[in-house]
Amino acid sequence: MTKRSLPLSKVYGLLEPGPVVLLTTADKGKSNVMTMSWHTMMEFEPPLVGCVVSGRNFSFAALTATRQCVLNIPTADLAAKVVGCGNSSGRRKNKFAAIGLTRMPATMVDAPLIEECYANLECRVADTRLVNRYNFFVLEVVKAWIDAAVKDPRTLHHRGRGSFMLAGETIKLSSKMK
Amino acid sequence: MTKRSLPLSKVYGLLEPGPVVLLTTADKGKSNVMTMSWHTMMEFEPPLVGCVVSGRNFSFAALTATRQCVLNIPTADLAAKVVGCGNSSGRRKNKFAAIGLTRMPATMVDAPLIEECYANLECRVADTRLVNRYNFFVLEVVKAWIDAAVKDPRTLHHRGRGSFMLAGETIKLSSKMK
Repeated sequence: MTKRSLPLSKVYGLLEPGPVVLLTTADKGKSNVMTMSWHTMMEFEPPLVGCVVSGRNFSFAALTATRQCVLNIPTADLAAKVVGCGNSSGRRKNKFAAIGLTRMPATMVDAPLIEECYANLECRVADTRLVNRYNFFVLEVVKAWIDAAVKDPRTLHHRGRGSFMLAGETIKLSSKMK
Repeated sequence: MTKRSLPLSKVYGLLEPGPVVLLTTADKGKSNVMTMSWHTMMEFEPPLVGCVVSGRNFSFAALTATRQCVLNIPTADLAAKVVGCGNSSGRRKNKFAAIGLTRMPATMVDAPLIEECYANLECRVADTRLVNRYNFFVLEVVKAWIDAAVKDPRTLHHRGRGSFMLAGETIKLSSKMK
């Protein structure tokens, strides 16, 4: 898959529909991946993303220590691997190898990109004021990558307990909204 | 449409997929509605929802003053009305009448429920620490209503500039995730 750089001003259009993402981290030479659905855009540009990473997740310590991560957006063909990431912990194994996800180097952060995901957002932690109370991190997207061949990505949207809505058709309405 | 009370423990499954919502407020006898996509779950129970309501929106003042609102979740049949809410301001007109949305009384807050939406979440503002910096409100859902006839709601998911992904099919995978 060949990806191109995506202007940061277009990042919101990827996350605003609410897809499940795979959050990758790297700390002391060890990388990890977790499934995450609790995220929201907070600013268009520079793009800010708020997200909840539970203290129970192995990724929490890496995110806190390095203040870096990548948000990778999977499509429906990766559904089984997405659930695999959610069902296991990086404490006990290398999830990339076990699940079959390919790491690629990022340019602005140490956390890896996941090659199989159609979009990758390199992020730095911008605000930790709500981490103690809610495990809520504000991230700034500093570099974005996209597979330009994917037009209407069939993203995964978690309804709870392993039930996922798959992105359906896209409609266009006349709108003044950004 | 007859709605029943939904246990608060099930609210996350409605918002986690990332649908566009209609946020209603009421202040000094005047109610208003705005379109919103920037929201995320922050806790399962009691359900906490983080959301961005721009200071440019007429609803910002009402939300700040009353610390109450309702999140109403529309389906695809309401797409034109959703865009209508986003394209106009409550400063200049009564959007409910102009757009054709029916207000119903809530039980725990003064903001109205929108009858045409398949789910309605009555909310109180729980945390305003990030309002000054990001217009980010933490809401607690105190009462939830759902049209039990709607199983896999065809929700709207904004890709930007009036482009909406419609919820497609739902798949079920074996998962340990909540």
